[in-house]
Amino acid sequence: MSNKLTHEEQEALVISEDPEHPANLISELCREFYKLGWVTGTGGGKSMSSNSYLPEHVYLAPSGVQKERIKPEHIFVLPFAQSSVPRPGSKRDFLRIPSKKGLTESQCTPLFWNAFTMREAGACIHTHSQHAVMLTLLHPRDAQSFKISHQEMIKGVRIGGVGKTLSFFNTLEIPIIDNTAVEEDLTESMAAAMEKYPDAPAILVRRHGVYVWGNTWEQAKTQSECLDYLFEIAVKMLLAKLPLVGDN
Amino acid sequence: MSNKLTHEEQEALVISEDPEHPANLISELCREFYKLGWVTGTGGGKSMSSNSYLPEHVYLAPSGVQKERIKPEHIFVLPFAQSSVPRPGSKRDFLRIPSKKGLTESQCTPLFWNAFTMREAGACIHTHSQHAVMLTLLHPRDAQSFKISHQEMIKGVRIGGVGKTLSFFNTLEIPIIDNTAVEEDLTESMAAAMEKYPDAPAILVRRHGVYVWGNTWEQAKTQSECLDYLFEIAVKMLLAKLPLVGDN
Amino acid sequence: MSNKLTHEEQEALVISEDPEHPANLISELCREFYKLGWVTGTGGGKSMSSNSYLPEHVYLAPSGVQKERIKPEHIFVLPFAQSSVPRPGSKRDFLRIPSKKGLTESQCTPLFWNAFTMREAGACIHTHSQHAVMLTLLHPRDAQSFKISHQEMIKGVRIGGVGKTLSFFNTLEIPIIDNTAVEEDLTESMAAAMEKYPDAPAILVRRHGVYVWGNTWEQAKTQSECLDYLFEIAVKMLLAKLPLVGDN
Amino acid sequence: MSNKLTHEEQEALVISEDPEHPANLISELCREFYKLGWVTGTGGGKSMSSNSYLPEHVYLAPSGVQKERIKPEHIFVLPFAQSSVPRPGSKRDFLRIPSKKGLTESQCTPLFWNAFTMREAGACIHTHSQHAVMLTLLHPRDAQSFKISHQEMIKGVRIGGVGKTLSFFNTLEIPIIDNTAVEEDLTESMAAAMEKYPDAPAILVRRHGVYVWGNTWEQAKTQSECLDYLFEIAVKMLLAKLPLVGDN
Repeated sequence: MSNKLTHEEQEALVISEDPEHPANLISELCREFYKLGWVTGTGGGKSMSSNSYLPEHVYLAPSGVQKERIKPEHIFVLPFAQSSVPRPGSKRDFLRIPSKKGLTESQCTPLFWNAFTMREAGACIHTHSQHAVMLTLLHPRDAQSFKISHQEMIKGVRIGGVGKTLSFFNTLEIPIIDNTAVEEDLTESMAAAMEKYPDAPAILVRRHGVYVWGNTWEQAKTQSECLDYLFEIAVKMLLAKLPLVGDN
Repeated sequence: MSNKLTHEEQEALVISEDPEHPANLISELCREFYKLGWVTGTGGGKSMSSNSYLPEHVYLAPSGVQKERIKPEHIFVLPFAQSSVPRPGSKRDFLRIPSKKGLTESQCTPLFWNAFTMREAGACIHTHSQHAVMLTLLHPRDAQSFKISHQEMIKGVRIGGVGKTLSFFNTLEIPIIDNTAVEEDLTESMAAAMEKYPDAPAILVRRHGVYVWGNTWEQAKTQSECLDYLFEIAVKMLLAKLPLVGDN
Repeated sequence: MSNKLTHEEQEALVISEDPEHPANLISELCREFYKLGWVTGTGGGKSMSSNSYLPEHVYLAPSGVQKERIKPEHIFVLPFAQSSVPRPGSKRDFLRIPSKKGLTESQCTPLFWNAFTMREAGACIHTHSQHAVMLTLLHPRDAQSFKISHQEMIKGVRIGGVGKTLSFFNTLEIPIIDNTAVEEDLTESMAAAMEKYPDAPAILVRRHGVYVWGNTWEQAKTQSECLDYLFEIAVKMLLAKLPLVGDN
Repeated sequence: MSNKLTHEEQEALVISEDPEHPANLISELCREFYKLGWVTGTGGGKSMSSNSYLPEHVYLAPSGVQKERIKPEHIFVLPFAQSSVPRPGSKRDFLRIPSKKGLTESQCTPLFWNAFTMREAGACIHTHSQHAVMLTLLHPRDAQSFKISHQEMIKGVRIGGVGKTLSFFNTLEIPIIDNTAVEEDLTESMAAAMEKYPDAPAILVRRHGVYVWGNTWEQAKTQSECLDYLFEIAVKMLLAKLPLVGDN
């Protein structure tokens, strides 16, 4: 760890009375997401780079901890500028590592970086929402993407996650990639899917969950909610044998 | 904006220690509705004219904000008396516009006005409840309305939303109108449906959600809950192939 | 109203710092039941006679109010000893009527009295739980009762609601009666069903909900929860075409 | 009861300001599990031996009480070292018995001891989760176990509940045993299943619920959540006729 900051400087990175400070927000949102069933067990990470708040820093929720009990002092902080994509276990730069024993950096780090570098996203959220997983299970094994249209909630989603919002008459398309044994091994296939589907606001991972990003934490959160609503209703529609695309 | 009030007078419109003041109520109810899944993402508006509290004013929840984080100072206030139906973007009268950046007036404003002027409603609630949307999806494409009878919860609904409560043996009928790309474009079809179905206590919008109104905020809220209960059980009944009307 | 108490004596009946005082409990439990979806809208009453606390008094939740906003001062108090079954609108004895406008006594009063007099119950709970209603809808029109066996949760239910707890190998049977337009008109058919099924711990009302009682408020509440669990799983089993009785 | 402690020493066992003290944790977790619907009614016990905190003591939640209202002073404390498996009603050692009337020791005690002695678990959780019960109901009557593979959430579960975490490509297998009239009569069949399935992290009980353990309370809790997620999605998959094992 090439950390040059003193202990006090490190702590100052995560201690703030501003409820919108990333360290406070990540803790609060993880509690909210826990109630939604998105991050139970130890599942589901959450990261936030703070283009609006502190553009040069990336705040990461820890792994190996109950998500509803995360506190600001459990947060990892990395500089956004890295010599290479920061993979867990590899050499890379940190500004702050939490001192509590047993906390490890999320394996999702390189996947979050995909959103930051390929979409200039300011925040990225990963959940194991059952609606997302059931949706991938209800698609044929060789399906490359999920499509839905004619839903008001589509209007809450932005093109590519960071552009203009979609219209009611647009078809939303989200690629589905295969899961891998180790989470960071998703990095390349996620990047390939993001390249092939530049308008997609998220990536679904078969039998695993979803990655959603946005310009800010508010947009990442509201888009996560809109998409989860759409995943849920799509599952219900498929079970009721209703077509997902078109206005029949 | 033809606002003649001073800044202090504007703020006084939304700052009150009375929990039943519309600015406090809208904020509180949006938090409750968020927990019910009615207004996740940025979806679902809420408005309240206060015939019982301040009959000459209309309080509107803002758009483009997370509904569970609305605070009294985010509320728009309009005079009830307007020269024409107040459409977003058109010229119209305001008493107060929140100063926080990024808050816009709900696109639902002219739809809420339908309830205020055609039913003399004192409050109107709009949600994207999945039960409402699934119900419209499970109806044939050309269905004009949803009908249900022989449910105790029907007794919690008022004729036309503002009259006497229905009896257990009454059939509740709610028109279903098509969605449009822009929310305010629903204004005319909603008005036409309200005219055609004078006893209907709400309007369902296909693939979108529902508008519910009442004499007071309490009645609008309890009728929203009764109707959502009926939408939910109707979806379950349709999936189980049980008839919605009659007592078989 | 043959109330001989002074205003101060009346208020003393509902103001207590003891969280287990019936006026506090009814308010708290209604908030909890609201979160469970049992008493949304204005639906679902709750009553408690307090054999353990104040055996000579019956505390009743008001009607026409949002159940999650009930406060101790909204509670009706009646003497348990009445010259006849206390029907709403009929002449009868009160110890306290809440002063807030618009609050009316629950129409369930004579039904609660069935539980008090026929089972010597100390508390009775009425809800519009959707699991209860769906269960009645999934039964044939002429079914007289719901039966289930071989469920661990059966062990949380008492014979007749007030006797010994059932065993895992017992079959639980709960009569289903038809709904009526006016709730108090259920009084006789509920009493007849309680007479015909002396071991039943509750009465299901088709297309309406359920009445559950117990020796104390704790037993009424925990039996309501056990029964609702059984109603919910029975609905799932019927939809999955699994038999409710037997251990196949 | 062979308790040699003074009243003050007994109380000191359960009164602590440390939120991670077992007496505080059991109370808090029971409230959380109540909200999840795992321990409604009087169902579901929870125990914790504290290898990390106080290795020589076992803390037990009481039976016959509403789980969301458990307080530290309601907790039973036993020495871990017992002359024989501590069965309810049999003679055995206690360090503390709560003084509140009506509280009885959980019938699960000997089942928890299975986890403590056969797996050296530090905590064990028992719930009546409907997902667990429905899962057993959807299995053939003679099924010996539940198997699932290719789910990200499998990675949150440890081999035998206390070993290394499973990989995405591992098949998780959990034995299903028959229920008995008296909970403690499950002791032998649970032990036999744990012997036959040494890698299983939990035991499912048909028409009853599940027992889950872990090295610490955190691991027992997060594994309970991961497993409940898997039970829930397995039920959905079975109803949708999707295979539980393999990656079709």
